[in-house]
Amino acid sequence: MRALAITGEFGVERLQWIALPQERPGPRQVRVRMLAAAINFRDMQVIGGLRQVPTPLVPLSDACAEVVETGEGVTRFKVGDRVMPVFAPGWHSGPQPQGDTLMTLGGPLQGTLREEAVWHEEDVVAAPAFLTDMEAAALPCAAVSAWNALFVAAALRPGDRVLLQGTGGVSLFALQFAKAAGASAVLISSSDEKLEKARALGADVAINYRRRPDWGKAVLDEAGPVDCVVEVGGSGTLEQSILCLKNAGHISFVGFLSGTVPQFDLGEISRKSVRIQGIRVGNRDSFEAMCRAIVSAGIRPAIGATAKFGEARQALANFRDGDHFGKVCLAF
Amino acid sequence: MRALAITGEFGVERLQWIALPQERPGPRQVRVRMLAAAINFRDMQVIGGLRQVPTPLVPLSDACAEVVETGEGVTRFKVGDRVMPVFAPGWHSGPQPQGDTLMTLGGPLQGTLREEAVWHEEDVVAAPAFLTDMEAAALPCAAVSAWNALFVAAALRPGDRVLLQGTGGVSLFALQFAKAAGASAVLISSSDEKLEKARALGADVAINYRRRPDWGKAVLDEAGPVDCVVEVGGSGTLEQSILCLKNAGHISFVGFLSGTVPQFDLGEISRKSVRIQGIRVGNRDSFEAMCRAIVSAGIRPAIGATAKFGEARQALANFRDGDHFGKVCLAF
Amino acid sequence: MRALAITGEFGVERLQWIALPQERPGPRQVRVRMLAAAINFRDMQVIGGLRQVPTPLVPLSDACAEVVETGEGVTRFKVGDRVMPVFAPGWHSGPQPQGDTLMTLGGPLQGTLREEAVWHEEDVVAAPAFLTDMEAAALPCAAVSAWNALFVAAALRPGDRVLLQGTGGVSLFALQFAKAAGASAVLISSSDEKLEKARALGADVAINYRRRPDWGKAVLDEAGPVDCVVEVGGSGTLEQSILCLKNAGHISFVGFLSGTVPQFDLGEISRKSVRIQGIRVGNRDSFEAMCRAIVSAGIRPAIGATAKFGEARQALANFRDGDHFGKVCLAF
Amino acid sequence: MRALAITGEFGVERLQWIALPQERPGPRQVRVRMLAAAINFRDMQVIGGLRQVPTPLVPLSDACAEVVETGEGVTRFKVGDRVMPVFAPGWHSGPQPQGDTLMTLGGPLQGTLREEAVWHEEDVVAAPAFLTDMEAAALPCAAVSAWNALFVAAALRPGDRVLLQGTGGVSLFALQFAKAAGASAVLISSSDEKLEKARALGADVAINYRRRPDWGKAVLDEAGPVDCVVEVGGSGTLEQSILCLKNAGHISFVGFLSGTVPQFDLGEISRKSVRIQGIRVGNRDSFEAMCRAIVSAGIRPAIGATAKFGEARQALANFRDGDHFGKVCLAF
Repeated sequence: MRALAITGEFGVERLQWIALPQERPGPRQVRVRMLAAAINFRDMQVIGGLRQVPTPLVPLSDACAEVVETGEGVTRFKVGDRVMPVFAPGWHSGPQPQGDTLMTLGGPLQGTLREEAVWHEEDVVAAPAFLTDMEAAALPCAAVSAWNALFVAAALRPGDRVLLQGTGGVSLFALQFAKAAGASAVLISSSDEKLEKARALGADVAINYRRRPDWGKAVLDEAGPVDCVVEVGGSGTLEQSILCLKNAGHISFVGFLSGTVPQFDLGEISRKSVRIQGIRVGNRDSFEAMCRAIVSAGIRPAIGATAKFGEARQALANFRDGDHFGKVCLAF
Repeated sequence: MRALAITGEFGVERLQWIALPQERPGPRQVRVRMLAAAINFRDMQVIGGLRQVPTPLVPLSDACAEVVETGEGVTRFKVGDRVMPVFAPGWHSGPQPQGDTLMTLGGPLQGTLREEAVWHEEDVVAAPAFLTDMEAAALPCAAVSAWNALFVAAALRPGDRVLLQGTGGVSLFALQFAKAAGASAVLISSSDEKLEKARALGADVAINYRRRPDWGKAVLDEAGPVDCVVEVGGSGTLEQSILCLKNAGHISFVGFLSGTVPQFDLGEISRKSVRIQGIRVGNRDSFEAMCRAIVSAGIRPAIGATAKFGEARQALANFRDGDHFGKVCLAF
Repeated sequence: MRALAITGEFGVERLQWIALPQERPGPRQVRVRMLAAAINFRDMQVIGGLRQVPTPLVPLSDACAEVVETGEGVTRFKVGDRVMPVFAPGWHSGPQPQGDTLMTLGGPLQGTLREEAVWHEEDVVAAPAFLTDMEAAALPCAAVSAWNALFVAAALRPGDRVLLQGTGGVSLFALQFAKAAGASAVLISSSDEKLEKARALGADVAINYRRRPDWGKAVLDEAGPVDCVVEVGGSGTLEQSILCLKNAGHISFVGFLSGTVPQFDLGEISRKSVRIQGIRVGNRDSFEAMCRAIVSAGIRPAIGATAKFGEARQALANFRDGDHFGKVCLAF
Repeated sequence: MRALAITGEFGVERLQWIALPQERPGPRQVRVRMLAAAINFRDMQVIGGLRQVPTPLVPLSDACAEVVETGEGVTRFKVGDRVMPVFAPGWHSGPQPQGDTLMTLGGPLQGTLREEAVWHEEDVVAAPAFLTDMEAAALPCAAVSAWNALFVAAALRPGDRVLLQGTGGVSLFALQFAKAAGASAVLISSSDEKLEKARALGADVAINYRRRPDWGKAVLDEAGPVDCVVEVGGSGTLEQSILCLKNAGHISFVGFLSGTVPQFDLGEISRKSVRIQGIRVGNRDSFEAMCRAIVSAGIRPAIGATAKFGEARQALANFRDGDHFGKVCLAF
């Protein structure tokens, strides 16, 4: 069974193809054959050595896989079912568990960039039947984060206005979910071309933040104050986000692009009764509720680029260097 | 200024046309000219003498009206604006206020079945521009109740499944709001004709509870367990509602059709961790949020019958005796 | 290893002493030696055949036990630790899981009335060191239900007023927790002697409902309207509970004494915006939070009677027939 | 009627004694005679010209006053009652209202540093009978902020651990409320003497942050991770607060000492699922619930210094320059 792994040195170019022994599923475990995987920004941080992980490590947390063998006592799935792994195995319900390190796929746990895996049946979720393998593979990390940002941390309602930043995976899923929930969406990007694509996906107002560095003001002018922000940005976005937020508004802080030293007066947080909720992907309950919504609304993830498993290293390099709109997926 | 009022004796046939002096708006008050009004089941209880109210009393709580004069210091509205009154003047935000009697229009406060009224500017809400007078008049009581049932008491999300009972105002508004929020809707009725109309309004599954007295089971069979029920029924519905509810599911108890001696084991409430939330219409915050959703989704209230102000007594009698689908409205 | 079990016929007198083979702990499991157990009303229903359970079944869900062996990979506990089992193994966080049957100890799962058990380390909780074995054994079912009723379903605050019914385990724990949270407590009972004991435990107002069948009115007169009710009663209590509740008040419905055909107008639920939340004991997060509070406040469970494991049948009969104040516990 | 006012120039030394005409109460208004007032840090910012306010302006938001005349239709109070004004008149329930400027006493609305005022009866709250005038005067701003921080934004439970910063009004009230709620409290200060006083008020762990600049680590070492932080600090505290917070923990951001450019990686907010809720004092519902708790628990505000109304300018200067433990109050 082949895998592409961090074997010691970090960096996309230093990933190594390794052979791993086939595992057998224990009680309540399933053995799966990977059908597709997807790349997240976080994976690039892991591969790049910006997060502490044990090595050798198989990166990536996203996949769609087929159950090929079931262990003793498995009742949730049968051979042939298509499943997706939960980002943090064991986190099924409720708030983020205590502990310094959340056990997540693709670091510190072994990830999905391999031909097979053995997972506990409680740690995988049924893939929506109408989605392709690659579309299903796109869901575990970015889509669950977006779902949590809008419907667990916040409680988006029809008629609410939500602000989305950029066209990464979380923002595009949030756009699709917000529209499915009857909310209106304002999206900012530095690219007119991407703004056009975002409009096609449902964005009601699209603002080029390069032309409007005071984009918080632009949001107020062109759309009005927002009820909810999905904050994914780095330095400087939080101030503008708060600027265009309603009093007692909500900010879901995914914030993976940070590094982040915001330079502004946090006093606005109390002056406007702002709520900021940090989002760490989400639990299995959220994943399953999201899948029901995806089926109900017929949402198809935006796929930006695809490659074969054997070309994974090149695909990762393209993801790092490139400028994609939608998820980058790998077919096995 | 004319009004139709309960002057002592109860009953639709005993309502009397009376003349009232024109009032002038005080500080922060507006004088309005009624454009349209709408009838709720509750109004029939008031007129029928089933609720304790002072007399003489002008019934009805629903209206759309035009501001014709503004008092000192009015800033929220100007002459010519179309407004709707809030059901319980003074209740602007937060939970139902304390006190034995909630001060609501159409009893104990003077209602909307009159040509003019003077209201505090904080107690009226802007009517969505795209709605007709009668459509806007349909909103204050039933629509706000439905909104509260789904988005304040509960937090309906895309992909959730909601159960609606019958085709009264609350249920039809809840149907439209649930669909706008990306939820799927199961609706029960005793009439195939009404079920057909409900399907046209968006109901995903429609069940005739006369043919399926065990309709809770039918919901499970044809749709699956529901996340949320808008309970408006009388004797017997609550048991079936709980039967088809998910564990930890939610019931918004509007329950105005009751009289109600349910004959069943309440132990199911704890066995399934059911939450039941009583709904008393709602506050102004809810009304305004709902209007944003109505505008955003382009929702038009279902109007079942219309009449002129001068024919109000007959329209009330028809409402009482009849079998309408959608709100019954009066044009002034 | 001995156990007292339902082997086919129901009824306390028909419980049989049986011998069970010793089990070895598998991966992440612990083998424990029972130190003490406690009886709940629910156990009497199971033993009495009022709940469907598989047989042979070892009843009881409550215990304090000592870890005597740890399986592979156990990290939460070590040999010698005192632990208590969670009522529903696997339910660690979040709302009650879906599924027709919640897997709980003492039916359908094997219970605690046996000398040893093997449990997953994630399904046991550390016993507070300052409690005796029997005090710790009293916690898993009744105390967690009371905790959930006040702090998960509701959010009791200092200065709130809570209504408690009777002197069963849930009500007495709720009394102690409410006082620890700075709330005031009104307790009703049919016995002046028990009311006196409840006062000693902290009850601020004590009402004999036999002398005041209109006890809802008595609560209003002697204490004022309450913010929260822990409803454990059967026929008739719910109506009086709602009567003395504030608008927008909360009722935690434990309701295990029901059988229950309430004879009253449920319309009060909407008129007062009442929230009713069914309580099915609770999850491990609640159990652990509760233990922190027990340690912090130095709360000792009220123990009403004790017996030896070998006298379990007699103790169960006494529980069924008797009139105890506080938990009935068994020492192994 | 005398008042001390900002008449144009800012600064404590430039406050002017002015004479104001006596007002008469209009419908539902009460005329009150000030008995005592209290100073908040915010008042110093207003007086110092750091907040935009209209002039002439009577500063201060805190007071206890006696009703000396009631307008038409007043039912909540009668002549002789002792009342306290709500910080933001009109904000009675629910979240902070929309609008750029919250209308609050002491700027932009006329404040309490005057012998008389006329307020709407809905904008004052009954003073707890057992408190002195000065103790009651200490409540409207700092105490309501602390209450909101612990029981509205968060839901503190017995056994929870809360972190408090410094010994200003908000932190000391939060300390007293947290202890009344059965929580344990960790308090940091730069003064051993103040830490000693905080211990006397109930602090379980007291840490001198001057000796432990890494005080977040010290909190973990000496108390363990906290469930809730009442964040009042300026530059740098937020990072340490998050460091010692549990996963999914809560920070109530009062933050009035800021100016604030935090220098740290906000990514911790998402990594730990932190929730940050801005606190803008609070509504009347909160004020009244807090008063019930104060009565129930017998909480007496810590008074740090007192002066006479005629010495207000000196008292304000002392507040600005000084180093007090507890509220600084003025007697009229």
